[in-house]
Amino acid sequence: MAQKPSIPKGTRDFSPAEVARRNYITGIIKKHFERFGFQPIETPSFENFDTLMGKYGDEGDRLIFKILNSGDFISKVDDITYSSKKSSSILPKISDRALRYDLTVPFARYVVMHQNEIDFPFKRYQIQPVWRADRPQKGRFREFYQCDADAVGANSLLQEVEFIQLYDAVFTELGLSGVTIKLNHRKILSGMAEIIGARHLLVDFTVALDKLDKIGEQGVIQEMKDKGISENAIKKAAPLFSLSGTNAEKLNVLDSFLEGSEIGIEGALELSKIINMLEKLELQSTKLTMDVTLARGLNYYTGAIFEVAAPEGIAMGSIGGGGRYDDLTGIFGLKDVSGVGISFGLDRIYLVLEELGLFPESLDQSIDVLFVNFGEEEALAALTLVSRLRTAGIKADLYPTNAKTQKQFKYANNRKVPFVSLLGAEELKAKTFAVKNMSSGEQISYSWDDLDEFIKTL
Amino acid sequence: MAQKPSIPKGTRDFSPAEVARRNYITGIIKKHFERFGFQPIETPSFENFDTLMGKYGDEGDRLIFKILNSGDFISKVDDITYSSKKSSSILPKISDRALRYDLTVPFARYVVMHQNEIDFPFKRYQIQPVWRADRPQKGRFREFYQCDADAVGANSLLQEVEFIQLYDAVFTELGLSGVTIKLNHRKILSGMAEIIGARHLLVDFTVALDKLDKIGEQGVIQEMKDKGISENAIKKAAPLFSLSGTNAEKLNVLDSFLEGSEIGIEGALELSKIINMLEKLELQSTKLTMDVTLARGLNYYTGAIFEVAAPEGIAMGSIGGGGRYDDLTGIFGLKDVSGVGISFGLDRIYLVLEELGLFPESLDQSIDVLFVNFGEEEALAALTLVSRLRTAGIKADLYPTNAKTQKQFKYANNRKVPFVSLLGAEELKAKTFAVKNMSSGEQISYSWDDLDEFIKTL
Repeated sequence: MAQKPSIPKGTRDFSPAEVARRNYITGIIKKHFERFGFQPIETPSFENFDTLMGKYGDEGDRLIFKILNSGDFISKVDDITYSSKKSSSILPKISDRALRYDLTVPFARYVVMHQNEIDFPFKRYQIQPVWRADRPQKGRFREFYQCDADAVGANSLLQEVEFIQLYDAVFTELGLSGVTIKLNHRKILSGMAEIIGARHLLVDFTVALDKLDKIGEQGVIQEMKDKGISENAIKKAAPLFSLSGTNAEKLNVLDSFLEGSEIGIEGALELSKIINMLEKLELQSTKLTMDVTLARGLNYYTGAIFEVAAPEGIAMGSIGGGGRYDDLTGIFGLKDVSGVGISFGLDRIYLVLEELGLFPESLDQSIDVLFVNFGEEEALAALTLVSRLRTAGIKADLYPTNAKTQKQFKYANNRKVPFVSLLGAEELKAKTFAVKNMSSGEQISYSWDDLDEFIKTL
Repeated sequence: MAQKPSIPKGTRDFSPAEVARRNYITGIIKKHFERFGFQPIETPSFENFDTLMGKYGDEGDRLIFKILNSGDFISKVDDITYSSKKSSSILPKISDRALRYDLTVPFARYVVMHQNEIDFPFKRYQIQPVWRADRPQKGRFREFYQCDADAVGANSLLQEVEFIQLYDAVFTELGLSGVTIKLNHRKILSGMAEIIGARHLLVDFTVALDKLDKIGEQGVIQEMKDKGISENAIKKAAPLFSLSGTNAEKLNVLDSFLEGSEIGIEGALELSKIINMLEKLELQSTKLTMDVTLARGLNYYTGAIFEVAAPEGIAMGSIGGGGRYDDLTGIFGLKDVSGVGISFGLDRIYLVLEELGLFPESLDQSIDVLFVNFGEEEALAALTLVSRLRTAGIKADLYPTNAKTQKQFKYANNRKVPFVSLLGAEELKAKTFAVKNMSSGEQISYSWDDLDEFIKTL
């Protein structure tokens, strides 16, 4: 019996229309990465088990897809381990490799391994799939692409400025107006914790603060209480919950609030420098807004942090994010590699563009000109013209068989072909071909020698 | 202790220069795929275990990378199986998924699953990595890209013609002159076996014949003898070992040799039609040559078969190949899906282009203009110009820190930047910038307002 085929949970097939749309997005991202001086690298889909394990916390370790060793893998398990019948003990004996979980750890590994070939400062981008054994749900997949850019090996606020310009350039070209880039600074968060006297509760404080949009001020206060943050501290922090106005106004409130915290003031000063530079340089379509509730989960950020919000009215989480970090490669023994990195959320950007109807119609057009096939001799003449069209850079095709004309036209319609060309017995004799404009219905005849004239109309 | 990082055997990191070169090749292949009316699809990196297993023979099954189930995988193994401690029995209990081994089986699966959305005839291309647990050696990797194009759901020799034109278009644009496309037909091979009376030994016969280049006529004869092919049969086949001349001359010899074998004559007739059409259409730079020793390993080919040989003098196996098949999707329960498919050998094409120095120099140039950083104020002015250059489509960058000028110039040299721009205190005052042509040493000064003039020179 033949198998009824399916694909694994959480994975996707991409149809031609979907690939075209995804490539449209990544093409624009790549183009701007390169204009900004970033260079592409690629790393293997699987890494050594030890390269990945222990880098993403216990939950991460669990979600990493492990690859089974080849051959008689079980024979490598010693009897004592085998008799335990414990997955966690047997795992490292039967799996030496695991699928990439993100692009950051492989990048760190790359920088350490290739440090002598790299010209620092190193601006790299990487667009590759990653895999996570997460429970699949709407918008969450077990295989998905990450689009990352990082600049490492230099320490300058110009880098933050550039990354925000990069976001602006990409979303502007995608036609996505109303995008907001939220900006905060880890040192501001630390300063805030210091001021409210809950320094040791910084993580709890920022995690609670991050939920302001979701659970409201009262919810955040309750969560802070539950986490053991004092009422007094919460009272001190209260003004932060309703900061508003321009970035300059927010920074003013912050400056006076943070007075007394050296680290907090340092963070506020950096942000104000970044914001001032960007005011001079001007963004094209995105809005930059300071957001002290922005915390971002990853603990390795140490400076400015960014998050990109879809245009208002679109129910979608962040469509990008990033920040500055002090130590990319310490885990692999190379110290003092600091940098800034951002990523684009490809799947979410896709959904936003789809919802707003922002994909160009031309993406659906995979053939510019289709020749109808009227039989062997006619087809050969048509193929001569098709070849010339292709050489001229036109996407041209000839229907492969002499099927009923109606069927061939139906195919042309389904493929959204704008021009269908007819070269039948009469045209063969007269050395001409007719071109039908499929939207207007208009039909024009050309001699074979005048193919270039037709090309000009495309 | 920090880990000293490495990557798994048989996998590769690709540096920016390597990615640029690989993208150059795949970019040209993609462009021509699309001009020829092919559409891209993408399938998941891993498939269900049962989708892949049993499709590539025992050796294939062994070489497929299996993914370990998540969580407490061992608990799903029943006690009897567990106590056997046999890898082959335990394997299917702890692995539900496996990494893609080629692009053909996933494509067949895709066609069956999406048959109602696909407009047949379906011309798809797919450029994605595949994984094989093969012993790594020079030019053989455990992760590598396949570049496949197939046209399914129609039956016409025009398709063979098109695929040969496609090879010609790609290798012509890659500047690789002297490429030979070898052509044969499975039915000719069957006919030959029939004529020599060794029909049941067809596979042995073709496998031996395929080694003509490597072990010579005597070696082939010996191998045929060893395989039990009769001396009489081998004598009959002898003229085939030294066929030469034009394709038409070869076909003449073949035609008389195959007299009496219906299937053989059918194959020869098809090839002669294909060759005749291509003579009328003309190839740009590749040479098409009939080669009766061409057999190709895959048993699923049933019609014309192709193989592309690198230019003479380059020690490299085939850099592409393909053929016509009768049954793509029968394994998944969908009958009568026939088609033609070809693939490009990316890694080998890369090596050939490298050996012949055919990669364009421009690929090494990842920044067009680099501004030297002379301090905070100057840098901000420079960044304004850099932003305008980027908006104009130029790859421009500003060195991120105010490092020693010598260091910045060294960086520019390493990155092969053709134009370095200087905007120091003087230029800031005069609202100008200087541009140094790094190959000629010439230096020109522009006012900020005349940036467009500079752009025109790029």
